[in-house]
Amino acid sequence: MGRLSRNTAVTRVSLVDAPASHSERRADAIAVEEPLEVRVGGEVVASTMRTPGHDIEWLHGFLFAEGLIRSASDIIEARYCAGATVEGVNTYNVLEVDLRPGVRAPGLEHIRITPGTSACGVCGSSSMDAVLRRVPARLSPPPLLAEQVVAMPQRMRKEQKLFRRTGGVHAAAIFNAHGELELLREDVGRHNAADKVIGALLMQDALPAHDKVLVMSSRASFELVQKAALAGIPALVAVSAATSLAVDLARESGMLLAGFVREDRLNLYAGELG
Amino acid sequence: MGRLSRNTAVTRVSLVDAPASHSERRADAIAVEEPLEVRVGGEVVASTMRTPGHDIEWLHGFLFAEGLIRSASDIIEARYCAGATVEGVNTYNVLEVDLRPGVRAPGLEHIRITPGTSACGVCGSSSMDAVLRRVPARLSPPPLLAEQVVAMPQRMRKEQKLFRRTGGVHAAAIFNAHGELELLREDVGRHNAADKVIGALLMQDALPAHDKVLVMSSRASFELVQKAALAGIPALVAVSAATSLAVDLARESGMLLAGFVREDRLNLYAGELG
Repeated sequence: MGRLSRNTAVTRVSLVDAPASHSERRADAIAVEEPLEVRVGGEVVASTMRTPGHDIEWLHGFLFAEGLIRSASDIIEARYCAGATVEGVNTYNVLEVDLRPGVRAPGLEHIRITPGTSACGVCGSSSMDAVLRRVPARLSPPPLLAEQVVAMPQRMRKEQKLFRRTGGVHAAAIFNAHGELELLREDVGRHNAADKVIGALLMQDALPAHDKVLVMSSRASFELVQKAALAGIPALVAVSAATSLAVDLARESGMLLAGFVREDRLNLYAGELG
Repeated sequence: MGRLSRNTAVTRVSLVDAPASHSERRADAIAVEEPLEVRVGGEVVASTMRTPGHDIEWLHGFLFAEGLIRSASDIIEARYCAGATVEGVNTYNVLEVDLRPGVRAPGLEHIRITPGTSACGVCGSSSMDAVLRRVPARLSPPPLLAEQVVAMPQRMRKEQKLFRRTGGVHAAAIFNAHGELELLREDVGRHNAADKVIGALLMQDALPAHDKVLVMSSRASFELVQKAALAGIPALVAVSAATSLAVDLARESGMLLAGFVREDRLNLYAGELG
């Protein structure tokens, strides 16, 4: 679609020879960010800012993580709104979705309240319990060596083409238990990137993905551990830090969670290496 | 509140002397992430995952960015739900808010649909127009020198105490036009950090902040430019990349937008340096 990055005039200022500064005006590639709206029965049920492309995968991953669909067959049809045009050109920014009859019609009140509890005592534990109730079985990571884990972000980086061009997007990747990269998506939003790869697995009828590893170019937050756990993915490898609630959920669900994964070291927050 | 970071057992694996690997189990500080729920009239209107602390500032900044309040006096009272306890201890994770009579009662359909349009042709431009309609006047950045701009993230880093401890949180800071740091907040979410500093300004009756600079430890997305523009802040300095829509909105609103701001260089995406 050619809309992943865009050239724009940027002034590069260098102070290397300070106090003299050097300015240069040139075209630079920046990552494209555009809204995406999801409508069910004409009603807007969700919207996100994302990098265009792989929108149908994103839709599957997002609706799956929100608990609205359980398999790809719950979506009868998803199409770009034909009338979604600006100056006669389709924006490809509005998805109209038909869900299988019987699939709970999404209401905003459902789709947007993450912790999923009406109890007054909302806290990390209650948020976690809400997720654990939706994870069918305790996760059981495949045996992974430290050498395999540290190699994953390096392997991923070679495929982060949009990042190389713009420096402005995150990546999510699916690796198999042999340490081989199987799928990679890039997006301005790390949650979107995760939804895209998990949505792709759902579309291949490959969930739960009990023998896969989710690798993120970002930090590991609660929501990313949640997305992996719900997809049955038993291992999450993150380039940067993990939060308290991410660590708690990983431990409770049986997930392997590695953070600060660099060329020659890593932090293991949950699970065991082989 | 002592809940900003937490010590947890982490296994540090080093492969520096590969193929031999060295593992060490030790306590490590990780950033705390907890849900925060906002209720108006008993109804949940929003929830976020955030680092606890400065929640009232966050509330002001968030409701202001969502267009629900215009001044601090629109909030009559905000208190932690007294019944929000887990094992007898208040979680401090639920805020009950009384809004001034006449302030539009927030509905989820309003608060969560960012682009704020029901037109089928949702796109970057329409999202931008929706924001520009809410920015009262064209922004006019104070004169800033390249030397001042590159110094800001360095100055900020000295105050990022939670980041130094955990490596896992973003920071937002308000600088004045002389390049002095006035306010800094840290949070696992960059949007939350921005809401906290802007909320603090609102509580000081200091919005619109026409002579301030918002400095972010993160990338500059559309939503961050939006938050700055709505607060009347005419300059945004980001340590990392800017997205296409962030650049467009900065240019349209008259904002100065600098990205990839490092010790001796920066990219200027919008506006002019002095």
